[in-house]
Amino acid sequence: MPPRSSPRGGCKRLPPTLSWKGGTGGHVVLIDQTLLPGQLKLIRVSTVTAMWEAIRSLRVRGAPAIGVAAAYGVVLGAQTSRARGWKGLARDVLGAIDRLATSRPTAVNLFRALDRMRDCWDRLEVLESGKPLDRQELLSVLLAEARAIHEEDAALCAAIGRHGASLLRDGCRILTHCNAGALATGGSGTALSVIYAAQELGKRIHVYSDETRPLLQGARLTCWELQRSGVDVTLICDNAAASIFRAGLVDAVIVGADRIAANGDVANKIGTYGVAVLAREHGVPFYVAAPSTTFDLSLRNGKRIPIEERSSAEVTGSPRQRTAPRGIRVLNPAFDVTPARYVTAIFTEQGVLRPPLESSIRRALRNRG
Amino acid sequence: MPPRSSPRGGCKRLPPTLSWKGGTGGHVVLIDQTLLPGQLKLIRVSTVTAMWEAIRSLRVRGAPAIGVAAAYGVVLGAQTSRARGWKGLARDVLGAIDRLATSRPTAVNLFRALDRMRDCWDRLEVLESGKPLDRQELLSVLLAEARAIHEEDAALCAAIGRHGASLLRDGCRILTHCNAGALATGGSGTALSVIYAAQELGKRIHVYSDETRPLLQGARLTCWELQRSGVDVTLICDNAAASIFRAGLVDAVIVGADRIAANGDVANKIGTYGVAVLAREHGVPFYVAAPSTTFDLSLRNGKRIPIEERSSAEVTGSPRQRTAPRGIRVLNPAFDVTPARYVTAIFTEQGVLRPPLESSIRRALRNRG
Repeated sequence: MPPRSSPRGGCKRLPPTLSWKGGTGGHVVLIDQTLLPGQLKLIRVSTVTAMWEAIRSLRVRGAPAIGVAAAYGVVLGAQTSRARGWKGLARDVLGAIDRLATSRPTAVNLFRALDRMRDCWDRLEVLESGKPLDRQELLSVLLAEARAIHEEDAALCAAIGRHGASLLRDGCRILTHCNAGALATGGSGTALSVIYAAQELGKRIHVYSDETRPLLQGARLTCWELQRSGVDVTLICDNAAASIFRAGLVDAVIVGADRIAANGDVANKIGTYGVAVLAREHGVPFYVAAPSTTFDLSLRNGKRIPIEERSSAEVTGSPRQRTAPRGIRVLNPAFDVTPARYVTAIFTEQGVLRPPLESSIRRALRNRG
Repeated sequence: MPPRSSPRGGCKRLPPTLSWKGGTGGHVVLIDQTLLPGQLKLIRVSTVTAMWEAIRSLRVRGAPAIGVAAAYGVVLGAQTSRARGWKGLARDVLGAIDRLATSRPTAVNLFRALDRMRDCWDRLEVLESGKPLDRQELLSVLLAEARAIHEEDAALCAAIGRHGASLLRDGCRILTHCNAGALATGGSGTALSVIYAAQELGKRIHVYSDETRPLLQGARLTCWELQRSGVDVTLICDNAAASIFRAGLVDAVIVGADRIAANGDVANKIGTYGVAVLAREHGVPFYVAAPSTTFDLSLRNGKRIPIEERSSAEVTGSPRQRTAPRGIRVLNPAFDVTPARYVTAIFTEQGVLRPPLESSIRRALRNRG
C-alpha cells in the first residue's frame, strides 16, 4: 500500500494551529494553546497588541509558529493603521515590527520572519517612491509575504519529516521533550513531523512524551496532538526520563529547537540539555529537528543566545493553590543550551546534518541560497 | 561564638513531623504534608487504618518518617484491639504489622521498623507464656519500642548532619531533590540535616531545591522547611537542574534514600538518578545522606529493589483542571535507582562512607553491631 499523502501529513486530524481568514482586511484565527487539552478554543486576533499578547502569553508558541504569527501581526499593523499618509503608515508598520520583536527573545524564527516583513516593506517603499501605492495593493503585498512565510514553514516541516523518518526503523521508541509538533509550527511540526512521516510510511512508532515543566507543553500539547493523530504515546514526568533510558526503552531522542548557533549549539525548551546528557550517557542518539530558519550564524556558539527568564508564578502554582511557600526565590529560565557535541544529527529541510555540525550547517545554508 | 545546640538542630522552628501524644491510650499527631505549604494542619491518627491511609496517601512520607509512623501504627493496633484473650490480641497486632507493610513498597525503613515491632511482640509472647501480662503493661512495652525507634531516628539524623556538615565549606551551593528534611524523618532530616548542621556551625549554605514532580515535595516541603529555618533557598523546576549545573552554580548534590542495596545502589525519589548523571557529567560530587536503617543487605544490588508505580492521576492534573488529555497512557514510577558508581559518598550516622561502597557499607553495619 503506498503511503497516504496530504498537505498536513500524518496530523491532518488536527485543526490548523493558526491561519489567516479572509483576504486583506481579514484576521488571524489561532488555537489558544493555554487552554489545551481541556478546551479547543479558536480565538480571533485582529490587532498588533492582541498578537503580541498571544505570543507573549504562549497562546501561540513554538519557534516556527511564532515566526508565522508575527508575520501576520505585521499585516494587522498595516491594516489597523489610521495614518493617512505614507509616513504615518510606515511609522505604524515599523512600530508593529519593533513591538512584535519584544514579545519573546529566544526563538530566532521570530526575528527572521520580522526581518522578511521589513524587507518586504522596504521594497514597497522603493515602489512607493516611484508611484504612490494604493493602500489595498500594499496590504495584499504584505499579506502575500506573510502567507508565503506560512506556506514555506509548512513545506519545511514536511521536508524535515521526510528526511528524519528515513532514519527511524519500524517499532522505534522515541523520547521527545516539550512540543515541537503541528502546534508549534505552521505545518506538521519539526520533531513530531518526523513521527508523523514515519507513521505515514507504515512504521510503528512509540513516543515517550516528557511532560515538560513548568508549562507542561509535553503533557498538554504533545500528548494531545499525538493522541488525536493516532500515534502511540506515553506520558512521563520529566523526572522519569532517566529511568526510561536506563531501562532501555528509548531508541532515539528527537526534539525541536528555538535557535541553533553557527557551531551547532542548540537552544531549546528548558530540560532539553538534561535529556541530551542522559541520551549520551545511555548511548542513545540525540536528534534535533529544525528548519534552517532556526540557524543563527551571527552567533558563533550558544553562549550568546538570549535565554528568556519567565515569571516565578509559572513554578509556584496558581493563586488558588500555591505549590511553593510565599516569598520563595525562583529561577525559571525558559530555555537551555545543548552544546553541539551532544547532538547526533540535525534534521533540516536540506537533509540530515551530521558532525562536524559547524561545516554541515554552513553547507546547508549555502545550498538554501 | 560557639554553635547553638538543640535537640532538633537547625530546624527547631519547625513543628514535629509526627509525635505520640499521651501515654498508652494516646494517639499520633502528624503534619498532613499533602496540605503544605498552603496549610499547616496537624491531624490526629488513632487507628491502624488511618495510619495506613496517612502513609499510603503521603500525609506522612519520607523513608525514616514512615518507619516511625508505622511503629506507632502497631501500638495503635494493639490499643484498639477488642480481643479479650492473648490469641485475639496477637492476631490484631500481627495483622496491624502485615497491614502497615502493604502501605508502601520501596522504603526499607518501613519494614525495618515493623520487624522491630514484631520482635518486640515476640519477646512479649515469651514473657506471656511465663506469666499472663496485664494489657496496660504490654501496651507500654510496645509504645516504649515505638518511641525508641523515633528517638533513635532523631539521633541518627543529628549524627548524619554532623558527619556531612564537616565536608561542606562556607559559601557552598547545594542541589537537593525531593524532601529529605525534618519532614521526612523523626528528627532534623537526612540530606537537610547536613544543611542545618552546617548552618549551625556558622557556614553559609545556599540550596537549590528541585521542585520534584509529580508531587512537588521539593517545592512544597523542602522550600517550606528551609525557608522557615532561615536557610537561603532557590526553587527550580527539575528541568532547570541541568542548566544550573552547566552554569557552575552547584558545588555538591545531597539527596536522601529510600533503600540502599549491599553494593551501594541507591533507590530514591524519581529523578534522583538523572541528577546523579548530571552531577558526574559536570564533575560535581553526589552525596547520599541516609541512616544505616536504609541499607538492605538482603539485596545484592539495586535491580531487585521494588519500585512503587503510583497513580497516573498524579501526573495528569486535578479533575478540575486536567493537564493531559483524557485516556492518555502514563508511566509514573515513584522512585529510581542510582547505580553505586555515581555515588561520591554516603553520609550515615557511622560517618562518611566512601567507595568501594560495598565494603564500606559492610564495615559500617558491622560497627553498628
